[in-house]
Amino acid sequence: MAEQLEFELTHQTLQEVSDAIENGRFVHVRRQLQDMEPEDIAHLLEASPHRSRDVLWQLTDPEDYGEILDELSEDIKDSIVSKMAPEKLAEATEGMDTDDVAYVLRSLPDDVSREVLDQMDSEDRERVEIALSYSEDSAGGLMNTDVITIRSDVDVDVVLRYLRMKGELPEATDALYVIDSDDKLIGHLSLTSLITAQTDVSITELMDDADEAISVDASATDVASLFERRNWVSAPVVNHENQLVGRITIDDVVDVIREDAEHSMMSMAGLDDDADTFAPVIKSVRRRSIWLGANVLAALAAASVSNMFEGTLAQMASVAVLMTIVPSMGGVAGNQTVALVIRGLALGHIGNTNQRSLLLKEASIGLLNGILWAIIIGGIVVIWKDSLILGMIMSAAMLANLLAAGIAGVTIPIMLKKMNIDPALAGGMALTTVTDMVGLSAFLGLATLMINLNLI
Amino acid sequence: MAEQLEFELTHQTLQEVSDAIENGRFVHVRRQLQDMEPEDIAHLLEASPHRSRDVLWQLTDPEDYGEILDELSEDIKDSIVSKMAPEKLAEATEGMDTDDVAYVLRSLPDDVSREVLDQMDSEDRERVEIALSYSEDSAGGLMNTDVITIRSDVDVDVVLRYLRMKGELPEATDALYVIDSDDKLIGHLSLTSLITAQTDVSITELMDDADEAISVDASATDVASLFERRNWVSAPVVNHENQLVGRITIDDVVDVIREDAEHSMMSMAGLDDDADTFAPVIKSVRRRSIWLGANVLAALAAASVSNMFEGTLAQMASVAVLMTIVPSMGGVAGNQTVALVIRGLALGHIGNTNQRSLLLKEASIGLLNGILWAIIIGGIVVIWKDSLILGMIMSAAMLANLLAAGIAGVTIPIMLKKMNIDPALAGGMALTTVTDMVGLSAFLGLATLMINLNLI
Repeated sequence: MAEQLEFELTHQTLQEVSDAIENGRFVHVRRQLQDMEPEDIAHLLEASPHRSRDVLWQLTDPEDYGEILDELSEDIKDSIVSKMAPEKLAEATEGMDTDDVAYVLRSLPDDVSREVLDQMDSEDRERVEIALSYSEDSAGGLMNTDVITIRSDVDVDVVLRYLRMKGELPEATDALYVIDSDDKLIGHLSLTSLITAQTDVSITELMDDADEAISVDASATDVASLFERRNWVSAPVVNHENQLVGRITIDDVVDVIREDAEHSMMSMAGLDDDADTFAPVIKSVRRRSIWLGANVLAALAAASVSNMFEGTLAQMASVAVLMTIVPSMGGVAGNQTVALVIRGLALGHIGNTNQRSLLLKEASIGLLNGILWAIIIGGIVVIWKDSLILGMIMSAAMLANLLAAGIAGVTIPIMLKKMNIDPALAGGMALTTVTDMVGLSAFLGLATLMINLNLI
Repeated sequence: MAEQLEFELTHQTLQEVSDAIENGRFVHVRRQLQDMEPEDIAHLLEASPHRSRDVLWQLTDPEDYGEILDELSEDIKDSIVSKMAPEKLAEATEGMDTDDVAYVLRSLPDDVSREVLDQMDSEDRERVEIALSYSEDSAGGLMNTDVITIRSDVDVDVVLRYLRMKGELPEATDALYVIDSDDKLIGHLSLTSLITAQTDVSITELMDDADEAISVDASATDVASLFERRNWVSAPVVNHENQLVGRITIDDVVDVIREDAEHSMMSMAGLDDDADTFAPVIKSVRRRSIWLGANVLAALAAASVSNMFEGTLAQMASVAVLMTIVPSMGGVAGNQTVALVIRGLALGHIGNTNQRSLLLKEASIGLLNGILWAIIIGGIVVIWKDSLILGMIMSAAMLANLLAAGIAGVTIPIMLKKMNIDPALAGGMALTTVTDMVGLSAFLGLATLMINLNLI
């Protein structure tokens, strides 16, 4: 309950802290920060306008720097780290897990990162260098090298005495790993088995087989998917010789799960996954204008379709008034399909086997919803514009566009994925371009035909 | 590595299984399903067209039913459960965690759920009834009542002997909870502390204080946020008297984190969070047509704006050709802001303190990007349509609309949230309605003014 309260108080703290900063009551802020957990200070930094962040950082106890940096999202972490002196960074990362140190150092220019590494003691340096050698988005980048290993030929009593002698276990340890003399992983022993076993049982008898190891090259997304499906708390990581090289814990995987899930939404709006809510204006303008630039092409493509029918538009202004409705409905319907397909691709639910049945399903939905809305909107237009022909044109264009939206909504993301283009990033805009062009062509084309036939 | 391989093979399995079903080789499918883990069968069901699901379910070993149901997303779980006989369901849920049984039973009509409960043994029934009494989206709904508790006045040796006698610990047990004679939570003892402690140390000395308890009323989202920030594997749940009532484990929280993160993307497209990728067509048509219905209103609102300027459109077809560009750019720019604000609200980064600075930031971005694209698109129009005045109208309307998009992008989601309307669901469409109407009014209004002034 205490925690619950604390969580709700974040914004009150934020209010107090920002008031105190504004009034220059820095001693007060420093005292308040001292009472907070590093992860809450990280949250406070994320929720602060970027101008206040520097002041907050200065007032934070340097002891907490490492843990705070580890909890920050990439964008904000990078901007803070880039302003820190190498020796301060080396100090801050002391005692942190190697994967977390690697996260903090990853964005630094090589020479600065080198300087930080040189300040570390040799054992830490070596471990961090190994962590940095793996891609950030791989099992190697997620893993921690701090693992407790045991041999299979001892019994429970020996292991318990060994652990008591060690005195402390790495964070989130829920299992010990059993290796042979070549460091090859042969099994794992959960703490719960160890603790409930009789002391004279041998480890060979008690351990589970090592069929749950993750390859060091596995992608972070695959690792997250495995953790999610298997309900793991931690899992061993092995190299190609099946030697144990590290351990991945659920706390790091949770970050991957959230980032992967957020990725789709942010990308669909053309934003970076870790876009900072309170980023400096100039930085945001630069990033977003690229996305707007892509949309200019899409908007001009649609306008060039209308341009082909300029004669029709000149003859009949009601056609111009109505021409935005069909593209709008197609865009909305198609984006529903795109969102569904993007999630299905991300979860691994969509593959070669079921693409055809998905296409059939979405085309059917497009057709049925097309019929429904063709009737309704056609009816509205007949009444509004008092023209049966205009209503029929609207109905036909609507039906064609919703059907096209269903088909394009399935095929575009799948094709993009095959071309190794992120469907979440490009899918929505490509879809809208298609539905705009199909919608406008159908509506304006039919209107032109009817005018040429002297039917309206 | 074995696991890694298995993960990649899912779609191959799917292909094999669906081929086998099509060819009526049911014995083969049954044998294949027997070799699979329940969570992989769940994945297979999610990735199967809904027609194949019934066959797959029939061929699955009923022993695995409970675990599979627990792993399925709500939509698919509901459709399977609704077809099962109460006694089969009672059998399937035997030996499952109470929170998982509650998840399986939650969607059933009261009388069916009653029948299932009546088939359970009385202890299980009571526990499940308690779980069902809490809201699904609360700590009470997430927790498991299967908790190991100890007293503080014993020493490590006694606890170890007690655990060895029990022989097995609940899944994901990483701590034991220390309670007093009134069941009040007074502390917790991590398994790692227990295992590394000397056997004669007393629990009072070894345990940590109980400041990490979650209130049974806490929302699932708040619980997830706490787990994420504190890197917990499990946490105790207490009632208002601070009595221990259960325990939440990370595997259930991971589901909440994914659902919350996916919620925004799915809602922005007007889809349910757990919309089934392969749902029956009719079900999808019904759900999606509601969303299209909302968009009809938005599209008609935009058309009614153009309708006010019918005279202008009749006079000048190039205005009609160009009129879709400004709303399109405004919609894209505004939806970037909306996506950023929705994520910020979901993560708890945006509150009363920082709203103003966020508004200022997004308005500035809108203004700067507005200037940039006003110049570029204005220039394109001057060249394309050979009219300086049309280019200037375009520029002015673009600037106004991108500024409006930035302001509306911040205020709409925040206002919706204050009105207790889900900003992810309604935000994008409300924003697009605003940018469509502002964009069309500005562009067509200025064009009308220029025509009236005889400047074009």
